[in-house]
Amino acid sequence: MDNLSPLKKTWRFRLNPKTNMGPDISIRGVRYMLMSKLNKTETRPMIPLGHGDPSAFPCFRTSQVAEDAIVDSIRSANFNGYGPSVGILPARRAVADYLSRDLPYKLSEDDIFLTVGCTQAIQTILTVVTNPKSNILLPKPGFPYYEAVAKSCHLDVRHFDLLPDKDWEVDLDAIEALADENTVAMVIINPGNPCGNIFTREHLEKVAKTAKKLGILVISDEVYDHLAFGKKPFVPMGTFGSITPVVTLGSISKRWIVPGWRLGWLAINDPNGTLKEHGIVDCIMGHLSISCDPSTIIQGAIPDILSKTKSDFFLKIINIIQESANICYEGLADVPGLICPSKPEGSMFVMVKLDLSVFEDIKDDLDFCLKLAKEESVIILPGITVGLKNWLRITFAIEPSALEDGIKRLKAFCERHSDKP
Amino acid sequence: MDNLSPLKKTWRFRLNPKTNMGPDISIRGVRYMLMSKLNKTETRPMIPLGHGDPSAFPCFRTSQVAEDAIVDSIRSANFNGYGPSVGILPARRAVADYLSRDLPYKLSEDDIFLTVGCTQAIQTILTVVTNPKSNILLPKPGFPYYEAVAKSCHLDVRHFDLLPDKDWEVDLDAIEALADENTVAMVIINPGNPCGNIFTREHLEKVAKTAKKLGILVISDEVYDHLAFGKKPFVPMGTFGSITPVVTLGSISKRWIVPGWRLGWLAINDPNGTLKEHGIVDCIMGHLSISCDPSTIIQGAIPDILSKTKSDFFLKIINIIQESANICYEGLADVPGLICPSKPEGSMFVMVKLDLSVFEDIKDDLDFCLKLAKEESVIILPGITVGLKNWLRITFAIEPSALEDGIKRLKAFCERHSDKP
Repeated sequence: MDNLSPLKKTWRFRLNPKTNMGPDISIRGVRYMLMSKLNKTETRPMIPLGHGDPSAFPCFRTSQVAEDAIVDSIRSANFNGYGPSVGILPARRAVADYLSRDLPYKLSEDDIFLTVGCTQAIQTILTVVTNPKSNILLPKPGFPYYEAVAKSCHLDVRHFDLLPDKDWEVDLDAIEALADENTVAMVIINPGNPCGNIFTREHLEKVAKTAKKLGILVISDEVYDHLAFGKKPFVPMGTFGSITPVVTLGSISKRWIVPGWRLGWLAINDPNGTLKEHGIVDCIMGHLSISCDPSTIIQGAIPDILSKTKSDFFLKIINIIQESANICYEGLADVPGLICPSKPEGSMFVMVKLDLSVFEDIKDDLDFCLKLAKEESVIILPGITVGLKNWLRITFAIEPSALEDGIKRLKAFCERHSDKP
Repeated sequence: MDNLSPLKKTWRFRLNPKTNMGPDISIRGVRYMLMSKLNKTETRPMIPLGHGDPSAFPCFRTSQVAEDAIVDSIRSANFNGYGPSVGILPARRAVADYLSRDLPYKLSEDDIFLTVGCTQAIQTILTVVTNPKSNILLPKPGFPYYEAVAKSCHLDVRHFDLLPDKDWEVDLDAIEALADENTVAMVIINPGNPCGNIFTREHLEKVAKTAKKLGILVISDEVYDHLAFGKKPFVPMGTFGSITPVVTLGSISKRWIVPGWRLGWLAINDPNGTLKEHGIVDCIMGHLSISCDPSTIIQGAIPDILSKTKSDFFLKIINIIQESANICYEGLADVPGLICPSKPEGSMFVMVKLDLSVFEDIKDDLDFCLKLAKEESVIILPGITVGLKNWLRITFAIEPSALEDGIKRLKAFCERHSDKP
């Protein structure tokens, strides 16, 4: 290295400090950090309760229809070329039809923009609404990717609480108190990540009315759409698109258990045409014209995937997730130091509060997760990652017997570290 | 619309003016604009000489190996889940091995970052080297996506000429004159887009030495790698990575004729470790951690695609492109008003100068392309799109008989509009 040191002065390139912020705030980064702490001499399998991707478990294998659709797409040789930056027409139309099934009005293909997973849909809409001084209202707890993208766009963030004692509903009074003339949008995630809740129709209507009163856009992240297994049905926020413009973000990632395929969408739910009138739709197209495109091979398969997947596949998945949610909720009930305010009804997660007074040697949620990874080979996400210090986000959407094993280890860990035997 | 107008005052969201710049400067945007001018009563097929994507022609169908690799990837169910943001290990290793075959040293998997096509590799490296006041040197003519990304990053652009009388070599004197203390990098595209040239080994070495003298990074866009069919062999710029750090951008899009699959890479060719030492490699990882990922289905197929594709597939493709290049070059020789300074030796394009004095009613290159689209259903890209006004970029990489038809129509068009019969 000695002969390199003098070069330091001669090279003119320097790094962009803005790009050096990823791993420490991303779920992926924290998860990898925890995995690096696993005890290498451990013989038991690692139990992954840290992320919303059960695709590695055979019982969560995607539908035959989806696999066949990709094979047909490849074998047709019709989807090897560049597509339009907004997505290919048959796929946009298929998404419009898919979403329209649950709406009181019909979406057209022009309302749909295909994206590289739901993450690019998040990037797109946050970039489009960013202006000097503008701010956005994000839920706490939430999905930290929103904060990361907002930071990279220089969009200010204000957090409103989700209320654990009210089934994680949005604190609407907080929304009104937080918003000012520079607030452009609010985000909801339904089914809830990280809270595992489902918003009622009545609550969504109140959200729409609040947004209308404030003159802000509702961005509804429905990447876990239809993964509802409690008493409340999943209702898309677009239902209230005539009250206030709604931009819905979605994907095949979760319902079809194929997050690696990277196919998502951004849907304009705005029967009054307000967003078009304000130039937001043109802006979305402008942004996408210089952004990444989802693979045309996957786009070519979308019409079959969305229209031909049988209900028995969805039912099978929902049944496993529901069984897992029960195992998780019931199993956590007698674990010392863990408090679960409500039974999960949707998505793949539950938020659990740590009662640190119970433990002898646990400093905080991160310390809990680090020690748990090391001692029990169980990966759980510390709440700090999703905005709630000294909570945990537990993924229950894994193969039920593995989950039982994980909960057993979690219990043993908590009992061992508890000062009240 | 009347009842909407009052809303304008009540909605707080406004568009981000930065996002409203895409279509007018992109090749895709200009191409779609030209296609919208096609005469709808025309019965002859449209001849697409406007973009580097011959995938629609059966003779350019991708290799059976590549199709089979995707099918195996899907059927394995091993590639449905999230991958690491830098790409999955076997795919990174396969790209390292693939590129190392042509280099005087070996790349490791840590030198490779998988991207959503070559376009995300461009986005990534331009974002990473951007700092306040920094500028980048781009070729003229060039690929306008660089300008679009630089604009969105607030990275200043300075253009150096490629010299038509010297086989489109880089004007190295211009590079030295343009660079200042804020210059961070220069871009070359080899095989050349839009010029169809191949840089010699000697010229690439001079580029490396110039960059070293100036202390700037060389970004080498090799998306058309190995598509060389003249006398000069394709030499990767990484060959000179020990003289100056080189970041190579590549993809399976062109050599395998699958641009829609969106799988590219960014490769660090830097045996001295200068980029790592300067934090650039960490910055690339930071940027990718909040960016889009290429589909894991495609990533899973990469080892087979790169290692198992037979040479007869590459030979077949090269032979067709060479035949097409000959048809194009020879056909253009007796078209009035078109001047072709050098025979193409690589990529899929040739730059042709318009002698406007020959024509009666052609105002400029855009006017030429608009009238040609309307009258002859032939799409050619106006040079203004790639930085050279009153030139044309003609894609010859299409099925040879269609190309012959296209050149015939182009000739008829030029003769009809020429004032010297």
